[in-house]
Amino acid sequence: MASRNEIWPNSIGQDVNPDLDIERKSASFSIERLTNILDGGAETTQIRRAVYAVLQSDPEFSLENQYFLSQNERYEGAIRRSIYLHKKMEEMGWPKGGPEQMYCRRALGADLGFNVHFVFIKSILGLGTDEQIAKWVPLAEKYWIAGTYAQTELGHGTYLRGLETTATFDTATQEFILNTPKISAMKWWPGDLGRTATHAVVFAQLNLKGKDYGMHPFILQIRSLRDHAPEPGVTVGDIGPKMSFEHIDNGFLIMKNVRVPRENMLARFSQVLPDGQYVKRGSEKINYLTMIVVRVSILQEEMLPSLMKACTIAIRYSVVRRQSELKPGDPEAKILDYQTQQQKLLPQLATAYAFHFLCAYMQDIFNKAYTEINGGKFDLLPELHALASGIKVIASEYSSAGVEVCRKACGGHGYSLLSGLPSIYTKLVASCTYEGENTVLLLQTARFLLKCLGMAKNGQPLPSSVAYLSSKGFGKCQAQEKRDFLNPNVYTDAYRHRAFRTLRNAAVKLHTLVQLGIAQHEAWNICSVQLAQAAMAHSHYIVVEMFVKAVEKLEKEAAIQRILKHLCDLFALHGIFSNTGDFVQDGYLSTEQTDMVTESYLDLLAIIRRDAVPLVDAFDFSDEILNSALGSYDGHVYQRLYEWAKKSPANRKENPAFEKYLKPLFSNAPSKL
Amino acid sequence: MASRNEIWPNSIGQDVNPDLDIERKSASFSIERLTNILDGGAETTQIRRAVYAVLQSDPEFSLENQYFLSQNERYEGAIRRSIYLHKKMEEMGWPKGGPEQMYCRRALGADLGFNVHFVFIKSILGLGTDEQIAKWVPLAEKYWIAGTYAQTELGHGTYLRGLETTATFDTATQEFILNTPKISAMKWWPGDLGRTATHAVVFAQLNLKGKDYGMHPFILQIRSLRDHAPEPGVTVGDIGPKMSFEHIDNGFLIMKNVRVPRENMLARFSQVLPDGQYVKRGSEKINYLTMIVVRVSILQEEMLPSLMKACTIAIRYSVVRRQSELKPGDPEAKILDYQTQQQKLLPQLATAYAFHFLCAYMQDIFNKAYTEINGGKFDLLPELHALASGIKVIASEYSSAGVEVCRKACGGHGYSLLSGLPSIYTKLVASCTYEGENTVLLLQTARFLLKCLGMAKNGQPLPSSVAYLSSKGFGKCQAQEKRDFLNPNVYTDAYRHRAFRTLRNAAVKLHTLVQLGIAQHEAWNICSVQLAQAAMAHSHYIVVEMFVKAVEKLEKEAAIQRILKHLCDLFALHGIFSNTGDFVQDGYLSTEQTDMVTESYLDLLAIIRRDAVPLVDAFDFSDEILNSALGSYDGHVYQRLYEWAKKSPANRKENPAFEKYLKPLFSNAPSKL
Repeated sequence: MASRNEIWPNSIGQDVNPDLDIERKSASFSIERLTNILDGGAETTQIRRAVYAVLQSDPEFSLENQYFLSQNERYEGAIRRSIYLHKKMEEMGWPKGGPEQMYCRRALGADLGFNVHFVFIKSILGLGTDEQIAKWVPLAEKYWIAGTYAQTELGHGTYLRGLETTATFDTATQEFILNTPKISAMKWWPGDLGRTATHAVVFAQLNLKGKDYGMHPFILQIRSLRDHAPEPGVTVGDIGPKMSFEHIDNGFLIMKNVRVPRENMLARFSQVLPDGQYVKRGSEKINYLTMIVVRVSILQEEMLPSLMKACTIAIRYSVVRRQSELKPGDPEAKILDYQTQQQKLLPQLATAYAFHFLCAYMQDIFNKAYTEINGGKFDLLPELHALASGIKVIASEYSSAGVEVCRKACGGHGYSLLSGLPSIYTKLVASCTYEGENTVLLLQTARFLLKCLGMAKNGQPLPSSVAYLSSKGFGKCQAQEKRDFLNPNVYTDAYRHRAFRTLRNAAVKLHTLVQLGIAQHEAWNICSVQLAQAAMAHSHYIVVEMFVKAVEKLEKEAAIQRILKHLCDLFALHGIFSNTGDFVQDGYLSTEQTDMVTESYLDLLAIIRRDAVPLVDAFDFSDEILNSALGSYDGHVYQRLYEWAKKSPANRKENPAFEKYLKPLFSNAPSKL
Repeated sequence: MASRNEIWPNSIGQDVNPDLDIERKSASFSIERLTNILDGGAETTQIRRAVYAVLQSDPEFSLENQYFLSQNERYEGAIRRSIYLHKKMEEMGWPKGGPEQMYCRRALGADLGFNVHFVFIKSILGLGTDEQIAKWVPLAEKYWIAGTYAQTELGHGTYLRGLETTATFDTATQEFILNTPKISAMKWWPGDLGRTATHAVVFAQLNLKGKDYGMHPFILQIRSLRDHAPEPGVTVGDIGPKMSFEHIDNGFLIMKNVRVPRENMLARFSQVLPDGQYVKRGSEKINYLTMIVVRVSILQEEMLPSLMKACTIAIRYSVVRRQSELKPGDPEAKILDYQTQQQKLLPQLATAYAFHFLCAYMQDIFNKAYTEINGGKFDLLPELHALASGIKVIASEYSSAGVEVCRKACGGHGYSLLSGLPSIYTKLVASCTYEGENTVLLLQTARFLLKCLGMAKNGQPLPSSVAYLSSKGFGKCQAQEKRDFLNPNVYTDAYRHRAFRTLRNAAVKLHTLVQLGIAQHEAWNICSVQLAQAAMAHSHYIVVEMFVKAVEKLEKEAAIQRILKHLCDLFALHGIFSNTGDFVQDGYLSTEQTDMVTESYLDLLAIIRRDAVPLVDAFDFSDEILNSALGSYDGHVYQRLYEWAKKSPANRKENPAFEKYLKPLFSNAPSKL
């Protein structure tokens, strides 16, 4: 195969594509300054870049050729890289839980193993006694054992009470006997279980003297440390290929009379005494915090960076790709100059910024709650739980849908794995399901909102995020002309009204049905589509509100505040534009006002388009982290696609199909055609 | 690893899961009769089943273990299977282009190669002279040569005029000289090009004596028939992995002074004489028909079966999966009994039926147009082209989004490749991009609609599918109570009104901008988001209208008509429910009417839920074709997931990561823990 350089002289590694370069020169703000703000300060930017520089200079961390690897190769690479990273961090003196570790995981996340190993450690820290922590955690932290967290079963996910694994206490031997009583009870899905873990925290229904005590956690050895063979009574393996996560060995686990000593029940909150007596102590409420932490952290470490990467790739590509004539006789136009392309990409960019500021807010209120809870006050917990559930849903739905919009907006090339986009989507979309299925979570949030609505009716004070529910109503929108819709008070009121109205309508319907004699559970089910919508509307309002507040705080950064204000407006107006019915249905917005929203929204597209590239540059992803032929900083899209494609195994290997199947047929053709 | 049978006695291959069985016993109609109607007659059902029986009894066609194969294995399997199928069809006496061939492709579609080889043949039939057809087509039909269709370039897709490959005529040698003048001009994406094709129909800008004549097709040999080596001047290879289509070798092609004889320009519509003179003959309009045929056929062969399969898998799974308590104290409920699950799946089921009847309609009007066009009348062509474009968009968008809804509605197990759902989505979603990028197509349809609106204004008659554009307006919706929304006249009027209003608003805006002095092309761009919406609204209206008409025709099938009427209502009301703003914005629907739509829509969910399983059973997919651990007819979901997972290569191979990376660490742990 002739090489590129013989045919086309100039390409990658030299100048930046002028079509991309010109976009940067016209930035209305300092890209570096915005990067610092996103990082939380210039010093953090320096730390982050220093970490990336270390990773990128080390070939062990290279993601080159990642898109060509098999599931087995991805798995083996993830194990190798994780253990190497563990050593590297010690070598560099980067502390556990420090910012460097977070940046390492951000940079290498899609290619590290041992994710659930860390959940194993956290669960022991959260659920174990001091002795249990002292025994197990150091072993796991040094990777002398590998752990997993085995909760989900083949037949049960989000509904924990339905789990069927049993743990029966045998007083005679002072052991728990763990069993998988039927096929649907086998543990299914835990990461690191399929081919790696030696130990597991297993959740099982505790049975003492014939009485059930509900779900409890047990530490179980599942494989030999010496030869990795399953322990007696254990059947363990990999659950097979998934839509993504090729590098992770999600597994299954069957237990048949597996005995663990009494000391292996994690006993911070409840204990079984030698005589089989059950002792409960302390409040498990604090465990909700763990769930909340996990939901905030997947927003920060998975959803947000995924959407930011996709925006970076799609927007850079859209100023390099030229297609068709915009003005007759002109050269072909950059596709980002088409309104339809702006309408696809710029709302995703605004969403990425919205979620960035949402993360900061969630982190703040989480810290506040954490302090209170450690002081024994649990008042903030229900609000925080409802908020984190709703936010997890909107963030996972919007970010995964947004990534897919970005991917499709890159046309055919967005379908190539080399664009980086398909794997971002297929990995991210799992977040709609894991850590609480989205519909279930929305209904949990709805239940909290209904309760608050009832409290408001009774004149009780409400937690701050739902304070608007004690409003008497919001009247009609007061906007007179389209620029009024650039007033945050106008649109946050609209979002508040929408959330309030959808919730109240669902509540009225629920109440009416019950009054008509329909059983509560049945009435709840008949209202659940609308209740879920209300929870979504509430979460959407929170995102808008927090974006507005974050932008207000940037008053010392005029240029950055100006562009972020545009993005905030765009996020809010796009939400109205895309869900018009919710705002118009009861006449809150008039026909004329709806048209104003549309015009205001479309105007913003043209304004933000000018800064689109600087706004994604500010995310400051290195080419190595993006790992995209379409999204690199230099914009040499076509050269890179070609260079990378040539490395495909399909081009390196012989084609056995030719000798076997094609040649015998082709040999029938006349030799000269 | 212990086998299942040692642990759980009863499973696959025996009785049907009672949770699924009971759903079939309560069907309100004859499943077999509905299957016959979907097939177009009981005889066709017999033919189809006979074909499937042949394929399924032949191990060469088995798709077992498909989800575990590498890209190379998938490719080789597709080639092997295609050539074997060719022989099998001859053996069985199944004629080319007959129904058996179609059913074979439907059953094996995801695992056959040579897709573009058939486009190669069709393009010669459409663009070649009789001599050219006689020379090339028999060779290709016997697989003595393998062809591809090389139109798309690295830098250009849908915008054909931008293609950059050149063909310059050399009078001295009577040859065309083909060149790839720059990197963006290389052919990129054609299927079967990467590792298979020996010949290609290449589109290039024809240059005669320094003058450009636009795009023309040339037949080119690209690889040796003897050893498959690239021909002189040709660089060819695979473009690397994609989101799906692992079995297809999409490729690239670079030409450097490749010479082809004058006879190799496909010359049905234009010819180059020996002296370099250009002769045009006949109308190329007929070529639009090819594009239209392709768009109708991907609806029929790709989009529709994909959505039907996804519905079958998700709905069967949703009556087997039980989760959480619906009524306190009751056993866990089937997840399809939750309104939120019905709201996810049943609209997709209704959409599948809507698209089935849409296919039949498109086929009808296509046949009518074909007859007219062969008689030299091209009047129907613009309408047909606009219709096929809009329908391609709505069908690809709705079916791919619908499949993803089905997948996510299966929770974690929908994320496993073994569910069959991820690969249906990742393959189908490509249809939003190929055969005309969706946004570009919508704007083509919008251009036609605008023209029709102008004609209506001038009192000219309109083609039938757009006749409503000559309406003077639709007033307000006349519905008084919620059951009025089950009247097809009420909702088709609403859809007509919405399409009319969105189009008229966009037209008024466009006109106003031009009046204000904004250049036509700029005004068009500023209106393009709204124009695309109008084209989508029109296409949506057509789907509703055609579903209504198809149901009306079933008056002799009372039970089937009744359930299909429910589905038609559901499809229409779901569209209003999901796009309320479009119907409410100008007061066409009042607040009260919107609430009626919601209630009517939610009521339908509960009604259709009862027949949900019979309605997917009627699609009559065999287990082999579904190839899903979740969707099989017997409903033994958990057993099948486990049986299949055990076959994963991850469970069959040693784990080299243990010896290399894990054992050295684990050996530090105390041997007894």
